[in-house]
Amino acid sequence: MTVALNEPQTNGRSETEYGKNVVNGLKKEEEIEKSSVQKLSPEQDHVLKTFRLLIADLCGQFNGGHPGGAIGMAAIGVALWKYVMRYAPHTPDYFNRDRFVLSNGHTCLFQYTFLHLTGYKAMTFDQLKSYHSDRVDALCPGHPEIEHEGIEVTTGPLGQGIANAVGLAIATKNLQATYNKPDFDIVSNHTWCMIGDACLQEGVGLEAISFAGHLKLSNLTVIYDNNQITCDGSVDLTNTEDVNAKMRACGWEVIDIEDGCFDIEGIVQALNKARESTDKPTFINVRTIIGIGSAVAGNAVAHGAAFAKDDVKNMKELYSFKPEESFFVSDAVREFFSDIPPRGEELVKSWEKKVQEYEAQYPELGTEFRRRMEGRLPENWKDLIPSTFPNKPTATRASSGLVFNPLAQEINNFMVGTADLSPSVNMIWKGKVDFQNPDLKTTCGIVGNYSGRYIHYGIREHAMAAISNGLAAFAPGTFVPTTSSFFMFYLYAAPAVRMGALQQLQVIHAATHDSIGMGEDGPTHQPIELAALYRAMPNILYIRPGDSEETAGAWITAIEAKKTPSIISTSRHTLPQLTGTRRDGVAKGAYVLQEVEDADVTLIGVGAELCFAVDVAEQLQAKGVKARVVSFPCQRLFEAQPLEYKRDTLRRHRGIPAVVIEPYAPNGWERYADAAICLTRFGHSLPGKAAYKYFGFEVGPMTVKVGEYLEKIKADSILRREFVEL
Amino acid sequence: MTVALNEPQTNGRSETEYGKNVVNGLKKEEEIEKSSVQKLSPEQDHVLKTFRLLIADLCGQFNGGHPGGAIGMAAIGVALWKYVMRYAPHTPDYFNRDRFVLSNGHTCLFQYTFLHLTGYKAMTFDQLKSYHSDRVDALCPGHPEIEHEGIEVTTGPLGQGIANAVGLAIATKNLQATYNKPDFDIVSNHTWCMIGDACLQEGVGLEAISFAGHLKLSNLTVIYDNNQITCDGSVDLTNTEDVNAKMRACGWEVIDIEDGCFDIEGIVQALNKARESTDKPTFINVRTIIGIGSAVAGNAVAHGAAFAKDDVKNMKELYSFKPEESFFVSDAVREFFSDIPPRGEELVKSWEKKVQEYEAQYPELGTEFRRRMEGRLPENWKDLIPSTFPNKPTATRASSGLVFNPLAQEINNFMVGTADLSPSVNMIWKGKVDFQNPDLKTTCGIVGNYSGRYIHYGIREHAMAAISNGLAAFAPGTFVPTTSSFFMFYLYAAPAVRMGALQQLQVIHAATHDSIGMGEDGPTHQPIELAALYRAMPNILYIRPGDSEETAGAWITAIEAKKTPSIISTSRHTLPQLTGTRRDGVAKGAYVLQEVEDADVTLIGVGAELCFAVDVAEQLQAKGVKARVVSFPCQRLFEAQPLEYKRDTLRRHRGIPAVVIEPYAPNGWERYADAAICLTRFGHSLPGKAAYKYFGFEVGPMTVKVGEYLEKIKADSILRREFVEL
Repeated sequence: MTVALNEPQTNGRSETEYGKNVVNGLKKEEEIEKSSVQKLSPEQDHVLKTFRLLIADLCGQFNGGHPGGAIGMAAIGVALWKYVMRYAPHTPDYFNRDRFVLSNGHTCLFQYTFLHLTGYKAMTFDQLKSYHSDRVDALCPGHPEIEHEGIEVTTGPLGQGIANAVGLAIATKNLQATYNKPDFDIVSNHTWCMIGDACLQEGVGLEAISFAGHLKLSNLTVIYDNNQITCDGSVDLTNTEDVNAKMRACGWEVIDIEDGCFDIEGIVQALNKARESTDKPTFINVRTIIGIGSAVAGNAVAHGAAFAKDDVKNMKELYSFKPEESFFVSDAVREFFSDIPPRGEELVKSWEKKVQEYEAQYPELGTEFRRRMEGRLPENWKDLIPSTFPNKPTATRASSGLVFNPLAQEINNFMVGTADLSPSVNMIWKGKVDFQNPDLKTTCGIVGNYSGRYIHYGIREHAMAAISNGLAAFAPGTFVPTTSSFFMFYLYAAPAVRMGALQQLQVIHAATHDSIGMGEDGPTHQPIELAALYRAMPNILYIRPGDSEETAGAWITAIEAKKTPSIISTSRHTLPQLTGTRRDGVAKGAYVLQEVEDADVTLIGVGAELCFAVDVAEQLQAKGVKARVVSFPCQRLFEAQPLEYKRDTLRRHRGIPAVVIEPYAPNGWERYADAAICLTRFGHSLPGKAAYKYFGFEVGPMTVKVGEYLEKIKADSILRREFVEL
Repeated sequence: MTVALNEPQTNGRSETEYGKNVVNGLKKEEEIEKSSVQKLSPEQDHVLKTFRLLIADLCGQFNGGHPGGAIGMAAIGVALWKYVMRYAPHTPDYFNRDRFVLSNGHTCLFQYTFLHLTGYKAMTFDQLKSYHSDRVDALCPGHPEIEHEGIEVTTGPLGQGIANAVGLAIATKNLQATYNKPDFDIVSNHTWCMIGDACLQEGVGLEAISFAGHLKLSNLTVIYDNNQITCDGSVDLTNTEDVNAKMRACGWEVIDIEDGCFDIEGIVQALNKARESTDKPTFINVRTIIGIGSAVAGNAVAHGAAFAKDDVKNMKELYSFKPEESFFVSDAVREFFSDIPPRGEELVKSWEKKVQEYEAQYPELGTEFRRRMEGRLPENWKDLIPSTFPNKPTATRASSGLVFNPLAQEINNFMVGTADLSPSVNMIWKGKVDFQNPDLKTTCGIVGNYSGRYIHYGIREHAMAAISNGLAAFAPGTFVPTTSSFFMFYLYAAPAVRMGALQQLQVIHAATHDSIGMGEDGPTHQPIELAALYRAMPNILYIRPGDSEETAGAWITAIEAKKTPSIISTSRHTLPQLTGTRRDGVAKGAYVLQEVEDADVTLIGVGAELCFAVDVAEQLQAKGVKARVVSFPCQRLFEAQPLEYKRDTLRRHRGIPAVVIEPYAPNGWERYADAAICLTRFGHSLPGKAAYKYFGFEVGPMTVKVGEYLEKIKADSILRREFVEL
């Protein structure tokens, strides 16, 4: 069967009324016939109908939500949860479980309902009905959230989930290559990712698809809910490419399923074939009909609104259910799924036994595997960080390498990646091995294998961050993924960085070339406003260290932040090693670098410009102005300090004005400073030093500015209370 | 010839020393032979050599830059600028010129050098040599910038340029369908876009490619500098897909050029064939060798660093140039390009004549075409905006439609698009026609043609914004592109929105579903920190209107901002029409909505939460607390007001504390307020009202908070001077 959308459809709610001018994908009689023709067992047929009506009722209760997709995908769900996936509802965190990612997260009821039916304890019937309610402890938010049992990653922003799934599959490949032995496949799970049309259109999805094909992630299967409908109408309004040919060109195996609404057996066969693939990821193109059975089947209206009451009533009649009854789940349906929890516990038991035998036979590897399963680093990890650094000017991007590369070399929790900036980001450690398909032959001579922990992501910043989220989500702490690129390109990656922060996933982003000091690449590469984003984003540490010692502090803080991603923002250009910088000072966000009694001003120095604050203070001193210096690498860490510490550090409560020096947009510094030497326009293509000079970031002019400002506010009490850009 | 990289290459500067273990793409003797075998004329051969040595010298002078790509692309450049492109160096803004986009912007010397050689007046030899200098008025920044003669768009962040090119090609198609007549092809230009490997990896590039194929933009040609080298090494480290098959699957015509370093004639034929294409965009896959002729040819080292001095000397000897002479351009080379300026002026003259005849024959269309060429809207455009609105609760996303749709309907400068959210964003006007390939048949019945001005971008927010930049860049004001999506997804689009701001391109982004009031979709869709980004980003207006009247003000302001993009940020949920809101108040960024003498506090209300400020003020009044209300839709507009106006509006200089109400990260509000009722964590999936309640954004609790705050600061003079989150 191909999708039978022969007649004009409508273009969403704004262009049509509900059900008007709508053609059903199948005529009702055909649908009934179809389900029997396809050799559905009576139980399966009943389960599908029950599931579809449940979805319709769940959206109906508060008159909202996304019913159509979930209903169209019912048979896929039965194939996955009943027949194919290896998981344990009563041990939801079973380490070797198959991972399932719902990348089309708006169809979350699909997943919630199967979690309920297969026996996840938290997902009670009562909880299932919390969808779209005003219950604040609901387990059924509008998109799946990682905090809840049975959910591997939070999805919703389209394209993220498929990239997460690539990360999950990389995690498995890496663990397999690192720990499995011929007789011990202690890691053997598969990653299943459900997608809609969007993941084939969103850039981050396309990046991830291309990269997964390159890596030959045979343990990854993407299941495409090909219902040809999006919010605006049919997919062919915006996408008419040959999807299968495109996937094949990207190195994927492609399997077609023509009758995805009913052909459970065909889907099961395809899924099993995908699991057995040894050399390619698999793309299963499943034709479905959105909202099948309803009056708006096959129509965009079915996507994002509850069905009309009459429509649901008619569906129930068509399915021989009682029209007046809602949320009906028969004993037969309960029975159908009842084997799953015990089956899961069997899986867990036999796997645990296997791991115990493995530990006995390979004690060293076994201990390490156990440590990583528990999400721990070796106890002594901090000892690997240099306690001092050569006293010579060093770019903090190089300091990052000095600090982190010994850790990455010794500790295999760290998976390190770069978006094609290896020569610039200094993340290569001695003897690093690339994570690659071992059969790959490159023309540049670099090869690798799946136990490698250095990932060349290509020029795919967004996927790099999203894939890293997947790596981190595999199991807490088993991997600590690190990404690297120029800071400016973390704007490309921002949606995925945000998802990491939202999910409390520890991913460390090594962002180099911050500030206008990065030079000739010009305004397209000079981050002016980006720090404001990451300082405002909840649950992420944006840290700008000022020299090697502070860079050590930044990495230690980031590694200790188990539930918070970090951006370590470093310079391209060399910076002096400053007297008095302290790694433990970084952990507090800000600290006094130079104290002066009866100070006239506090100079706040940040990251690459901390040295300017020190120099300006010295110049001011020569003019008889007493200047304290505060190093301020991270606003969020500082904000978390006790009020007392904050006041003592800044001393604004004693009436000492503070001036911050940073060539960024000053937004947010108003909380800590009275004035800023800052940038409120885009940068300029000039060598680093010349760029600083062009914008007035030279010690002489800055000293004059601060001096004049102090004079002005002496005379103008109103100005004293206002934030001033110098 | 296929790329002859048979032996191991090195992995960038960090893993090898310069020239060590490097294998040239061709042996020197082969290169010499090759150039003659390929029937290069002696002049062409000499031009290529001159060009390559110029690039080497330009990078050598300050020992930096990107030589390899430009050198590898020399023959492509000769084909384009000498034989194929239609342009006029002495009339660089000639309306019907071919557009050339250098999407691999780091190879900018490629373009600068051809601009110089073909006679662009601004690009003197002296200016050409400014590359990587500290000259602040240089026309040769590290990436091409739109401000300079002969540059169509600023590029650099990879993947942007190719999406801009799609926008430029859409502009041409639309103008052709709107104005051309059988005997008058007054618009007939072609868009040429040069890309490297990155534009085939970056998500935004892939989105744009897919969309261009769908639209069958036959007037677009992408030329792929296929040198198989990126910063990290060879492309096959990260990308092993079948690029040609992928492009064909996306609906592109594909032409291969095997010997892209020398086969000028073959390239010219391919380019001409591409121009003649009538039904598909064309992808020309040109094999080149990065840095050909140098010792690091075919190697990643050639990408981003100047060649060694000896190497350049050897190149000169190989080419029979004087090794000690730099920047040599013979008279023969000058002669070779000398026909181009007069040829260009001929083009301009004959086109201008044609337009005059057109204006005579089609006076109405001609007048409109002239107006749009001059970048003007009809004089009366403001009259199309309702002067009043129904006094009933209205979501500001709906207000946006009331304000803007009449403009879009009447004025064809406006090209309106959405990333698959037509039913949600209210941007459809009566009788709107889709921009589509006229032969497209969709299953949902919606069709269109190239004169349509409503663009279904698909689920491609990033490309939508980048394509819109291209539309705006076609000619100032000829198009005023408008995009639409949920505000949260402008994080996906942010890199392109930034490029619009940097380039001073007027693009209006209609961002709906702002604030936590958007409800059930939950924290993935609730923008908490995003406003902080756009308030910090230079040259963009982020405007949150509070009701229909303010929405009118937002659109008027955005339409009048000819050199600044805007984001009009609106609510999903209904908002009351407030007394005293003023469209001209929006233009000032903030204004007093309710004045009280001897006020105790100023409440700052923003956008969807302005009504809260009004209600809290009323409640406070009942408790004997006098509260002023300031509506504050746009920080940037307010910042531009005279100091006097700013002080009078906020009255903080009179000692009145200000409290801002906005469920966003407060970063930046510290400049205007003393305290904030705000959000510093991610949101929660709840119905809009419940979400507000959950986070304390209800009038009762907010009133209590403000009252308590006022009491506290009476007693605590230090706290009075600090910013407080309530």
